[in-house]
Amino acid sequence: MSEKFVYLFSEGNASMRNLLGGKGANLAEMTGLGMPVPQGFTITTEACTQYYDDGEKINEQIQAEILEYIGKLEGITGKKFGDTENPLLVSVRSGARASMPGMMDTILNLGLNETVVGTFAQKTGNPRFAYDSYRRFIQMYSDVVMEVGKKFFEELIDDLKEKRGVTQDTDLTADDLKLLAEQFKAEYKNKIGADFPSDPKEQLFGAIKAVFRSWDNPRAIYYRRMNDIPYSWGTAVNVQEMVFGNTGDTSGTGVAFSRDPSTGEKGLYGEYLMNAQGEDVVAGVRTPLTIDQLKDQNPVVYDQFVAIVNKLEEHYRDMQDMEFTIEDGKLFMLQTRNGKRTAAAALKIACDLVDEGMIDEKGAVKMIDPRTLDALLHPQFDTASLKNAKVIGTGLPASPGAACGQVVFTAEDATEWATKKGADVILARLETSPEDIEGMHYAKGILTVRGGMTSHAAVVARGMGTCCVSGLGAIKINEAAKQFELGGNVYKEGDWISLDGSTGNVYGEAIKTVPASISGYFERLMSWADKYRTMNVRTNADTPTDAAQALAFGAEGIGLCRTEHMFFEADRIAAIREMIVSETVEQRKAALAKILPIQQGDFEGIYEAMNGFPITIRLLDPPLHEFLPTDEDDITALAKEMNIPLDTLKSKIASLHEFNPMMGHRGCRLDVTYPEIGEMQTEAIIMAAINVQKRHPEWDIVPEIMVPLVGERKELAFVKNIITTTADKLIAASGVALKYKVGTMIEIPRAAVTADEIAQEAEFFSFGTNDLTQMTFGFSRDDAGSFLDSYYETKIYENDPFAKLDQDGVGKLVKYAVKLGREARPDIKLGICGEHGGDPSTVEFCYEIGLHYVSCSPFRVPIARLAAAQAALKAAE
Amino acid sequence: MSEKFVYLFSEGNASMRNLLGGKGANLAEMTGLGMPVPQGFTITTEACTQYYDDGEKINEQIQAEILEYIGKLEGITGKKFGDTENPLLVSVRSGARASMPGMMDTILNLGLNETVVGTFAQKTGNPRFAYDSYRRFIQMYSDVVMEVGKKFFEELIDDLKEKRGVTQDTDLTADDLKLLAEQFKAEYKNKIGADFPSDPKEQLFGAIKAVFRSWDNPRAIYYRRMNDIPYSWGTAVNVQEMVFGNTGDTSGTGVAFSRDPSTGEKGLYGEYLMNAQGEDVVAGVRTPLTIDQLKDQNPVVYDQFVAIVNKLEEHYRDMQDMEFTIEDGKLFMLQTRNGKRTAAAALKIACDLVDEGMIDEKGAVKMIDPRTLDALLHPQFDTASLKNAKVIGTGLPASPGAACGQVVFTAEDATEWATKKGADVILARLETSPEDIEGMHYAKGILTVRGGMTSHAAVVARGMGTCCVSGLGAIKINEAAKQFELGGNVYKEGDWISLDGSTGNVYGEAIKTVPASISGYFERLMSWADKYRTMNVRTNADTPTDAAQALAFGAEGIGLCRTEHMFFEADRIAAIREMIVSETVEQRKAALAKILPIQQGDFEGIYEAMNGFPITIRLLDPPLHEFLPTDEDDITALAKEMNIPLDTLKSKIASLHEFNPMMGHRGCRLDVTYPEIGEMQTEAIIMAAINVQKRHPEWDIVPEIMVPLVGERKELAFVKNIITTTADKLIAASGVALKYKVGTMIEIPRAAVTADEIAQEAEFFSFGTNDLTQMTFGFSRDDAGSFLDSYYETKIYENDPFAKLDQDGVGKLVKYAVKLGREARPDIKLGICGEHGGDPSTVEFCYEIGLHYVSCSPFRVPIARLAAAQAALKAAE
Repeated sequence: MSEKFVYLFSEGNASMRNLLGGKGANLAEMTGLGMPVPQGFTITTEACTQYYDDGEKINEQIQAEILEYIGKLEGITGKKFGDTENPLLVSVRSGARASMPGMMDTILNLGLNETVVGTFAQKTGNPRFAYDSYRRFIQMYSDVVMEVGKKFFEELIDDLKEKRGVTQDTDLTADDLKLLAEQFKAEYKNKIGADFPSDPKEQLFGAIKAVFRSWDNPRAIYYRRMNDIPYSWGTAVNVQEMVFGNTGDTSGTGVAFSRDPSTGEKGLYGEYLMNAQGEDVVAGVRTPLTIDQLKDQNPVVYDQFVAIVNKLEEHYRDMQDMEFTIEDGKLFMLQTRNGKRTAAAALKIACDLVDEGMIDEKGAVKMIDPRTLDALLHPQFDTASLKNAKVIGTGLPASPGAACGQVVFTAEDATEWATKKGADVILARLETSPEDIEGMHYAKGILTVRGGMTSHAAVVARGMGTCCVSGLGAIKINEAAKQFELGGNVYKEGDWISLDGSTGNVYGEAIKTVPASISGYFERLMSWADKYRTMNVRTNADTPTDAAQALAFGAEGIGLCRTEHMFFEADRIAAIREMIVSETVEQRKAALAKILPIQQGDFEGIYEAMNGFPITIRLLDPPLHEFLPTDEDDITALAKEMNIPLDTLKSKIASLHEFNPMMGHRGCRLDVTYPEIGEMQTEAIIMAAINVQKRHPEWDIVPEIMVPLVGERKELAFVKNIITTTADKLIAASGVALKYKVGTMIEIPRAAVTADEIAQEAEFFSFGTNDLTQMTFGFSRDDAGSFLDSYYETKIYENDPFAKLDQDGVGKLVKYAVKLGREARPDIKLGICGEHGGDPSTVEFCYEIGLHYVSCSPFRVPIARLAAAQAALKAAE
Repeated sequence: MSEKFVYLFSEGNASMRNLLGGKGANLAEMTGLGMPVPQGFTITTEACTQYYDDGEKINEQIQAEILEYIGKLEGITGKKFGDTENPLLVSVRSGARASMPGMMDTILNLGLNETVVGTFAQKTGNPRFAYDSYRRFIQMYSDVVMEVGKKFFEELIDDLKEKRGVTQDTDLTADDLKLLAEQFKAEYKNKIGADFPSDPKEQLFGAIKAVFRSWDNPRAIYYRRMNDIPYSWGTAVNVQEMVFGNTGDTSGTGVAFSRDPSTGEKGLYGEYLMNAQGEDVVAGVRTPLTIDQLKDQNPVVYDQFVAIVNKLEEHYRDMQDMEFTIEDGKLFMLQTRNGKRTAAAALKIACDLVDEGMIDEKGAVKMIDPRTLDALLHPQFDTASLKNAKVIGTGLPASPGAACGQVVFTAEDATEWATKKGADVILARLETSPEDIEGMHYAKGILTVRGGMTSHAAVVARGMGTCCVSGLGAIKINEAAKQFELGGNVYKEGDWISLDGSTGNVYGEAIKTVPASISGYFERLMSWADKYRTMNVRTNADTPTDAAQALAFGAEGIGLCRTEHMFFEADRIAAIREMIVSETVEQRKAALAKILPIQQGDFEGIYEAMNGFPITIRLLDPPLHEFLPTDEDDITALAKEMNIPLDTLKSKIASLHEFNPMMGHRGCRLDVTYPEIGEMQTEAIIMAAINVQKRHPEWDIVPEIMVPLVGERKELAFVKNIITTTADKLIAASGVALKYKVGTMIEIPRAAVTADEIAQEAEFFSFGTNDLTQMTFGFSRDDAGSFLDSYYETKIYENDPFAKLDQDGVGKLVKYAVKLGREARPDIKLGICGEHGGDPSTVEFCYEIGLHYVSCSPFRVPIARLAAAQAALKAAE
């Protein structure tokens, strides 16, 4: 156990953020800078951890230390806890390492009791203020510490106001407030079964415990998960002498930013209220003044504040978000921190700070949270319009961005409404299938009942950059009747709904969206990022359109081109199905011969789009039954189309059924059983490369052929032999000295642990962390939804392992495979092509273990570029 | 590359088996013992490997060396290849490290051509013999080396016999045979397009290549897989001077065993034919004489042979299987090897050899192949009856043994036919379900269309020791019409069929079976095994009956008691289903309260049956939907029974649907989402233990509660907390000082790589190698059938990883987990409870990595005991 759990503000500084929390460290720093800060002390984050280790108890050592510091604070302020002469009143506030605004609890005016309030009234000469402070304290303490609930107290206030015939709280007199305080205490006793504590020390420990507890409330748990903050960090608690903005007209309180947090414009930005406490500003009952108005109202304080703001920005070299209070004309700083800002503002501020000479380019690159870039690349909801919108259901956040449109239930309708009526449409489906591609393309957003983050809808939508919410199981969809039921309401074709693909939220109304907007600041910052970045960023793209999009976002190649998505398009699915239902090798080869020119054309298009950048093409991966229809009518139609008996087709489909398709006949297993598939795909790749190389002699095309789902060296050797035999013959015949590489996905645990053997055959590894995560954890992404929430609630998992790479487990396998692979083949090329490739923490991990590139969906390329630059800068420090 | 690829018989000995193959090493050994062996040389197994490494070519170094040894052999014999005076004729035979009888090819009489045959006829004074040898050589060479096919030659012989008006080959004259040889050569030229080679050296290299090639023929591949022989071993080739058993009436050839291979009875056992070559004995055209008859026919040779047999058995200290030839009254030994024998014979021979002082107990233990014990524990087909039976289909060998009975199609019929009519029945089902338990119990064998080696049918059948063939997809079953179609035939209720659960073969007829029989020899050998064994053997048992069976087979505890199998029984499935469809915690608890006393009763029964041995009980593992009906009628019935609307039940069932149930909501994930399930199961276990402990104060009951499917320390900590909270309360209230342990399965790759963390919570690990193999390879056992055959054919896999633990991949993870687990908790208890626990090579692996026990199904306990003893003896050497 630590020796010291409490620090005076004068004992700390900004570098002690991990121990003191952000708020505590900054209060200490401002104290050190000689700024007017009400004094106090910080109970460390380690005390919070200790509290939980001790079974949610503050142990005796820490209790004693807190009391010792109360003594010190009494010495500093000359006031005394519970004193009838000069009582000490304090605020108790949480303060974690990372800012979690509004996530945890605060208690003000602590130290008041029925005796002290009298002294306080007398001393301030303002009984109304004293009793108002007292009733606020009782209310806040009851709510936060004892969880009585605010509404009982609000009702008492309303009752009294009605009785007195007034409408504003401010119209209540000191006596009214004194009465209210008594009523509040009676209500407290009624609810809790004990008297409201009058001993300030008892109040203090109650409040501290409440702050510790608030670290573990559902809001905080959710916020941490969303923002990747570990549970183990804990929160600090700040106990600070109260200053009052509500003692009269020369007092006030406010918040301000050193620059505009929405736009990044330079200049003070904020608001304040005279004769008010912080909660009044937040509550919005009275309209606050803008910070400029303070200039007229109290120029001395204003100038003092501006000087402090400038000094703080200079000191922290970042935009500051500050809280201040004016007590009887005297300015106090209650908080400063680096301000939250929109993505657009973040870019402008970073660039401006560079131009102002406050930071250098590296500093600017480090300043931007890569995840926020997403908001710049996709449409988002207009904040004002979103404010009162009601969420009617939440599915999986399958593809980011916001969309608003009229709901339609078939892909044909989506196309028709969009092209003929010019309507914005949302396509709602039980699940999407290959035939829906065109309609999906025209839809503003896609909503599905079934399917996870890797379902057809999700993967296709992400590639197109279209918003998608998938797996919304709560919906009851009736595609025939063209309507769905959700949350007790029925939505018919043409009704307006809105989707948020970044959260999974669905709204039963139209919400205005604002389009994606990339500014010059974006380009400027990304160019700095690229300067310091050493790891390449590629993209996962399956079509020339996706490839061009990714190139525009700065991709330096394709890390994963999935050949199967091409199979789904209408003009080829018939041949694919013919191939699948073939009974003999000859039939299969005949069907493959029809697919060959189409697939070769696709590859040529992608090579052309990629301007000579390298492209890794993966051989067919999904189980074949994914390409066959499941619906009775569709099966009948297919039988007719293919001219085979319905029963034969049905029994073929039945024979392809798998209990666990994820772990079935797919990936390179298809090439082992049907080598002719690998032959055809190799031919398509090599011939495309030869043709494009001929057309563009200035490019150096080196196809990278990737074998999926390998688990054993001999398996890769077998498929590699199919590839090289086919390729070498074609190359020899072509007269073009084309080189190519054969490598593999590492996505099966066995491949990771035998990577040294596999590297004997593979010229490159690409870590397929989607499947590797599924196999390593032993749960499928599509099924985990039914229990993952319980895992977050119980804190077994703090993150979604499909979004952020699990470095302790899956990452251990990746690291091991890198080590083994390099031992066997020192120049092996290493990359990652799972969805994790666009997650900043995973990008940093990939950099640390020495991968050559990450590959992610086109819209995540900028995120990966920035994250890779930050990882390089961090490592250089 | 090796320096030396060829050894004269006089250069080798029995210890060089790996290099010279079994046959070559033993010919060398016999040569060294001064026995009459026709001389020759052995081309090593390394030459075979080199042949494949060189792209199926015999390289120049090896060619030169072979020619050099031909020269040496000419020196030894005084004969010369292709010589017109004294021509050298040789046989060319394969000989692998492990005996693979009949798997590879042999060529006799090599060295003959149209010139040599004349000399040979003259020299032997027996033109008929010479030309017969010649035409046999042409036929054999054409078939084996050039793959022309025997039937063309057989037709020519038949034509000539018809022309000559004779029926026996022996009725053909020397001239006839000379003519045939000419016709054969013409046929050869016709088929191959080239003259039959007359150069003996060309013949020799052709023959050697054919033997090398035969290492890779489908028969050999299959045999290796069945017998766990690595492809990399290769085969040696033996080139040996010909001796002839067919020169006349003083010549002959035969095979003999030093003891009866069926029963193990001591004494010469074998047969021979005078004036014949080896193939005549095998062909069975003439009835051979028993070896005893040689005593009268040629007492000198007989005595000489008996002396050799005794000397060989003494020398090898094992029963010998020998081939010999008598040429003009002179005895030659052509082969000796340890003879194949039945399991019963193996036990008797081992015991007899100990009694005779030939070997010690350890030697006896090492002598028995543990896998053969299976045949003693289950009924088997009568060998004679099986001989001409036709396989009509092959499914998965789901539970070993043989069964013969009248086919029925419902469990009720199985019960009825068996109990009322006293019939032997085979139960054929699309798939079995919990309700079928009783009928399965009465059936002699079980046949299912769907489901793999871990399906309900397979697991239940193995537990009961009943023969089962599962996953026979080729069958078309019509349960309503009570018939099935297979291989073009229809089998109706009451028709006789037979199943071989050890091979998966199904026969459309009645085949006599012989019952399981455990002899005194078995008990004696197992007692020796137990004496030298250090690792414990437990069993996987879910019922008192299974537990008692396993105890009788020598189990020392239960390593895996699956609580879910109890759930399937008729008297409890209703409550289970009620629990599953519960919408609230209260409903679920109410249903669980009904299950509690039943489950507690089950556990008490098992504790009673196990006589105080330790029992590891696993918490509920399968996904809940497994307990719900899938059939429309059954769902309707259930809705009625449970008094809930059909739609509600259907949507509940739909909501439980999983894409990949293997990777879904199961194992400890159930306890995380529904802690009340873990509470109920803990209560059932602890209360059962307390009650049994009270009844048997002489026992020391320490329940081992096993949490399945753990992938993360915190997950185990969460479930452990449920267990300890529940258990401690019950124990405190009981007044019995019961101790218990909490541990986990290691069956998820992530658990293996984070085993150090998990060991902080787990008092024991049990490696669940079924799931661990599935997750590590990334394929599910139930689906892998569709591609595994291709993997065997292409030699990517040489073994079924579900039968024999994959030591290179899965084993690496197991080893790593053992290391990490021991680092974190040095006294951690380690075992294995996957199906692999009964596989001898896996048992040896488990011993090597220091596991404390293996656990397997009751009928494999003796196998595991013996394998564990062998592993200990091997390690001690």
